[in-house]
Amino acid sequence: YPSALRSGAVRKTTNIVCTISDDRGEEPTYASVPLSELMTPSYGVGDALSLLWFKKLLPPWASRFIELVLVTAADHGPCVSGAHNTIVAARAGKDLISSLCSGLLTIGPRFGGAVDAAAIAFKDAQERGVPPDEFVEGLKKCGRRVEGIGHRIKTAENRDKRVELLSRYAAEAFPSTHVLAYAKSVEAYTLTKASNLVLNIDGCIGALFVDMLMTADQFSPAEVDEVLELGALNGIFVVSRSIGLVGHALDQRRMKQPLYRHPWDDVLYASPERPPP
Amino acid sequence: YPSALRSGAVRKTTNIVCTISDDRGEEPTYASVPLSELMTPSYGVGDALSLLWFKKLLPPWASRFIELVLVTAADHGPCVSGAHNTIVAARAGKDLISSLCSGLLTIGPRFGGAVDAAAIAFKDAQERGVPPDEFVEGLKKCGRRVEGIGHRIKTAENRDKRVELLSRYAAEAFPSTHVLAYAKSVEAYTLTKASNLVLNIDGCIGALFVDMLMTADQFSPAEVDEVLELGALNGIFVVSRSIGLVGHALDQRRMKQPLYRHPWDDVLYASPERPPP
Amino acid sequence: YPSALRSGAVRKTTNIVCTISDDRGEEPTYASVPLSELMTPSYGVGDALSLLWFKKLLPPWASRFIELVLVTAADHGPCVSGAHNTIVAARAGKDLISSLCSGLLTIGPRFGGAVDAAAIAFKDAQERGVPPDEFVEGLKKCGRRVEGIGHRIKTAENRDKRVELLSRYAAEAFPSTHVLAYAKSVEAYTLTKASNLVLNIDGCIGALFVDMLMTADQFSPAEVDEVLELGALNGIFVVSRSIGLVGHALDQRRMKQPLYRHPWDDVLYASPERPPP
Amino acid sequence: YPSALRSGAVRKTTNIVCTISDDRGEEPTYASVPLSELMTPSYGVGDALSLLWFKKLLPPWASRFIELVLVTAADHGPCVSGAHNTIVAARAGKDLISSLCSGLLTIGPRFGGAVDAAAIAFKDAQERGVPPDEFVEGLKKCGRRVEGIGHRIKTAENRDKRVELLSRYAAEAFPSTHVLAYAKSVEAYTLTKASNLVLNIDGCIGALFVDMLMTADQFSPAEVDEVLELGALNGIFVVSRSIGLVGHALDQRRMKQPLYRHPWDDVLYASPERPPP
Ligand SMILES: CC(C)(COP(=O)(O)OP(=O)(O)OC[C@H]1O[C@@H](n2cnc3c(N)ncnc32)[C@H](O)[C@@H]1OP(=O)(O)O)[C@@H](O)C(=O)NCCC(=O)NCCS
Ligand SMILES: CC(C)(COP(=O)(O)OP(=O)(O)OC[C@H]1O[C@@H](n2cnc3c(N)ncnc32)[C@H](O)[C@@H]1OP(=O)(O)O)[C@@H](O)C(=O)NCCC(=O)NCCS
Ligand SMILES: CC(C)(COP(=O)(O)OP(=O)(O)OC[C@H]1O[C@@H](n2cnc3c(N)ncnc32)[C@H](O)[C@@H]1OP(=O)(O)O)[C@@H](O)C(=O)NCCC(=O)NCCS
Ligand SMILES: CC(C)(COP(=O)(O)OP(=O)(O)OC[C@H]1O[C@@H](n2cnc3c(N)ncnc32)[C@H](O)[C@@H]1OP(=O)(O)O)[C@@H](O)C(=O)NCCC(=O)NCCS
Repeated sequence: YPSALRSGAVRKTTNIVCTISDDRGEEPTYASVPLSELMTPSYGVGDALSLLWFKKLLPPWASRFIELVLVTAADHGPCVSGAHNTIVAARAGKDLISSLCSGLLTIGPRFGGAVDAAAIAFKDAQERGVPPDEFVEGLKKCGRRVEGIGHRIKTAENRDKRVELLSRYAAEAFPSTHVLAYAKSVEAYTLTKASNLVLNIDGCIGALFVDMLMTADQFSPAEVDEVLELGALNGIFVVSRSIGLVGHALDQRRMKQPLYRHPWDDVLYASPERPPP
Repeated sequence: YPSALRSGAVRKTTNIVCTISDDRGEEPTYASVPLSELMTPSYGVGDALSLLWFKKLLPPWASRFIELVLVTAADHGPCVSGAHNTIVAARAGKDLISSLCSGLLTIGPRFGGAVDAAAIAFKDAQERGVPPDEFVEGLKKCGRRVEGIGHRIKTAENRDKRVELLSRYAAEAFPSTHVLAYAKSVEAYTLTKASNLVLNIDGCIGALFVDMLMTADQFSPAEVDEVLELGALNGIFVVSRSIGLVGHALDQRRMKQPLYRHPWDDVLYASPERPPP
Repeated sequence: YPSALRSGAVRKTTNIVCTISDDRGEEPTYASVPLSELMTPSYGVGDALSLLWFKKLLPPWASRFIELVLVTAADHGPCVSGAHNTIVAARAGKDLISSLCSGLLTIGPRFGGAVDAAAIAFKDAQERGVPPDEFVEGLKKCGRRVEGIGHRIKTAENRDKRVELLSRYAAEAFPSTHVLAYAKSVEAYTLTKASNLVLNIDGCIGALFVDMLMTADQFSPAEVDEVLELGALNGIFVVSRSIGLVGHALDQRRMKQPLYRHPWDDVLYASPERPPP
Repeated sequence: YPSALRSGAVRKTTNIVCTISDDRGEEPTYASVPLSELMTPSYGVGDALSLLWFKKLLPPWASRFIELVLVTAADHGPCVSGAHNTIVAARAGKDLISSLCSGLLTIGPRFGGAVDAAAIAFKDAQERGVPPDEFVEGLKKCGRRVEGIGHRIKTAENRDKRVELLSRYAAEAFPSTHVLAYAKSVEAYTLTKASNLVLNIDGCIGALFVDMLMTADQFSPAEVDEVLELGALNGIFVVSRSIGLVGHALDQRRMKQPLYRHPWDDVLYASPERPPP
């Protein structure tokens, strides 16, 4: 339809096109499914999200997986960039939404935003049958890191429990988990290089999301790629972490914490020479 | 604890206090509940949210209610302020998070942000036994509108289905719905004044949230008031609508919609006289 | 015009009204003044701002005052909430605008956002001839602080140089500075209570802005009040500080600073007891 | 210094590095220049910005150029993405900063954010002596547009006055304008292809900024490239347009404009078939 939509005639008559929901009838619909149906016991948050983002009704194991990701990534303590900025804004007396957005705007390549990139890379390498060592060394040659691999604190001996929990769910519920298996083989190789080069939460969510999309029997191969390219997986992290960020803002308000000011002695002031006029 | 927390000694040693989650141990905890427990089948998104915001494990009917609110408020079409601004930002080629925040920043008193105010007002009037007509006329005398009442399009004959669906769930699942009943008695009165003065979605969520908090057997009266004053209920709307806003951003990207420019002929340019120098 | 603008007829034909600028003709105009005129040597940034916000061409001493405020408030180091959040976002690899907005969203009642409130309070008390001690004690009785008074570090012996510099300019350039004089008399009183209860930069800008508006011979008394109530003075702080925030984002990018993570040992984790199911 | 700064020792002792300003002494300094000096008549907003972003004191003609850019780009009417989203947020009853950020978050590749890309491309082609036709056709072959060229409405016959005004200033004030001349030769070629392929305001600011940086006698060639790569030129557009966005927010508040809702009949609802379960 997108091409049809944008034919001359249509373009002349309306300035906006929307394909995900409709608020005009007696009740709202998400991808043509009426809300009343979504409120029956067999549906939940994962289904609403899937309809609005993918226009699909997923099998229960897949909707549940989306919800488990929402639960798993909802918060990871007050020290990460997002929670920290939300806390600082809340302590400056700002309203809930300003505090939330101040934190959300830190999500990106180094924090929470490597999910799609990891998904795309693992999927491509797995499909082309690239051996893990070649995959890693190839990226290294281009000066690039392996997205979805590496952690500040977690190691082979002290794995990230969140990765383990999501993997365990998938092992039981998914028809197959080829891309996760590939990601784990990459981890097996990177762990021979350094013990903190574990599969991280972004990489795990990315790999499993591809496995879910490919085995849910609803997405054509082109549709899977489209979902990844649109950046939808980072969207899941964003929605999920919003829960934690709102939680942190409420927490600071509840405790009436005062204005945060970063301590002077934690800053290196390296002012330049006074410039010539 | 907040008073304890903020005793002199503690304040000296750390600059930040966090009471909602802990990322230091083997696995993250939300309000001391380990994540692995939250991933078992009896828990879901509503429980994670409730732990991070309220530090409570709610009964299943209450967690399910939170999830139904997340589903119900997830989207309401492309025309409302939030979706519109997200669409405009996405069409300007902006990334997912910028587009989301551009939309989120429109949520406020006139759009999606009347939930807490409605909850507080209905609860207070219900508890003090104020007759509905007095409640409405009292606000009118102060020049204030009834928060949670009124709709652009919906009327007595053409009710908001979302209100009906949430009410029906509560009637079946909640121990009691006194505050909703009160809100409906207010609606009965306002409908005698104008047929569009129906209980709207903000009012319905607000009233039912109070009923949930008061009958879930977990919150002291003071805790209920604290939740309302902190603005947590607007937070639910915000998290829920994030799902729809991300959906709209993905939708515009998928269709490769061009830069939006508001049509000149829809603007009244009312420039002043050239000011004197 | 606003009333005229919103008469029935007009409302029917356009959805948007704009009174500050016009982009339709051969060249853009700001409040009906063509841009080409604003680019002649007698005009500058202060004039553009004044036309777009107030629809006035101010006398040179007043435009220069606006520019001096823009210079004075442009930055105040990396430790304040706004700069800090911008720095954290930039170090998370976010683009310039996301980093800027993450910082801007911290500006509010406790940081940079007390200018209008201080202006309104000082103006009102000065006009009603309230003695400074009564003014301060009156606020105290209502449990309110004096907006524009107080500083974490500055004291009677170690004044805020920015306040001194702006005051000195006004003493030379303004026709009169009654409201600033009043603010200083308030400071004289509060300094008898504690030595850090100095007139701060928000209070100084607020008081002087009122003096400027009232003596520039362009604003009716009602227009002065409108400017204050609209929150325009906080707008000046916001535009000014944007310069510093962008500077901090560029600074972090230039130095390729890594992801910031707040140190664990600076956080008090005060998790609650595990809640009962 | 950046390398020095990031040597092991320094990194251990402080978590934050700042090189642009210092708030610790008796008065704040911007790049080691005390504020009191910046408030003397020979300095202005352009100088503060230049110190905080580039750590340079520019010659007066260059500071004035920065200020003229701030004036020129401050607003371009209510129809562009940024102003539109700010207007919608203000009409939803949101505070000044939320409204501003909702608009700022639309600035990007298609609106106001092509300045650096244009500057980099024009500079590179001019230095390598690429003939304009080759430059344009080379980009075309890669499927890329010429950044800084093209306009929805402006044409050869109806030029963008803002481009003309900035060019005229530079012709008089700059030591030389080689990059602008190159950009105009590119325009001469693109105009043979279509009459709306004029040099636009982003392209003009980009080209002239390079000319300014290269002839101001303060920047080494490597420093010029660093300024461009950091995205500083887009920063100028952002700061400048903030003035207009705040103006639009104040304008809507002043007129007490109601909640904006995009008209249903301007939307094509293209909902998909109901997805199979
Ligand atoms: C997550 C991350 C930032 C943690 O980094 P860190 O522990 O601070 O590690 P450092 O940046 O100090 O790197 C230590 C060494 O491991 C290497 N390394 C780290 N992550 C790597 C990766 N993903 N692929 C390849 N090598 C990696 C580094 O090159 C470095 O080696 P060197 O000293 O020879 O240059 C990092 O692993 C990373 O960038 N991962 C990829 C992006 C990603 O998945 N982000 C998701 C975050 S949830
Ligand atoms: C939602 C709302 C903005 C819709 O407004 P609208 O249909 O455009 O209605 P108008 O503002 O044109 O008002 C029409 C008449 O109804 C009255 N009215 C509207 N909502 C009212 C309310 N909540 N309480 C009392 N009177 C109300 C108005 O005063 C007006 O009467 P008047 O012409 O005598 O002045 C409005 O009902 C409202 O502000 N409700 C309260 C806030 C709220 O619940 N917001 C949640 C939004 S989801
Ligand atoms: C700027 C400010 C936050 C600095 O606060 P601080 O140095 O941390 O001061 P504290 O909050 O610890 O207060 C110390 C004492 O001074 C009093 N005090 C501080 N500012 C006061 C003010 N503006 N008016 C009256 N009393 C004030 C406090 O009540 C407190 O007295 P107490 O111990 O008897 O309760 C504070 O002065 C303030 O809120 N000022 C008003 C708002 C304002 O102008 N903000 C602009 C910021 S640029
Ligand atoms: C500003 C801009 C979006 C206006 O676009 P527009 O008037 O809507 O033009 P269209 O996108 O409809 O393009 C019309 C034709 O001109 C061509 N064209 C437009 N801008 C072009 C450019 N900068 N370089 C090369 N060709 C261009 C298009 O390819 C198209 O040709 P086609 O029909 O054979 O494909 C566009 O010119 C552009 O992208 N410019 C480059 C980015 C830029 O400078 N942005 C700054 C905005 S202030």
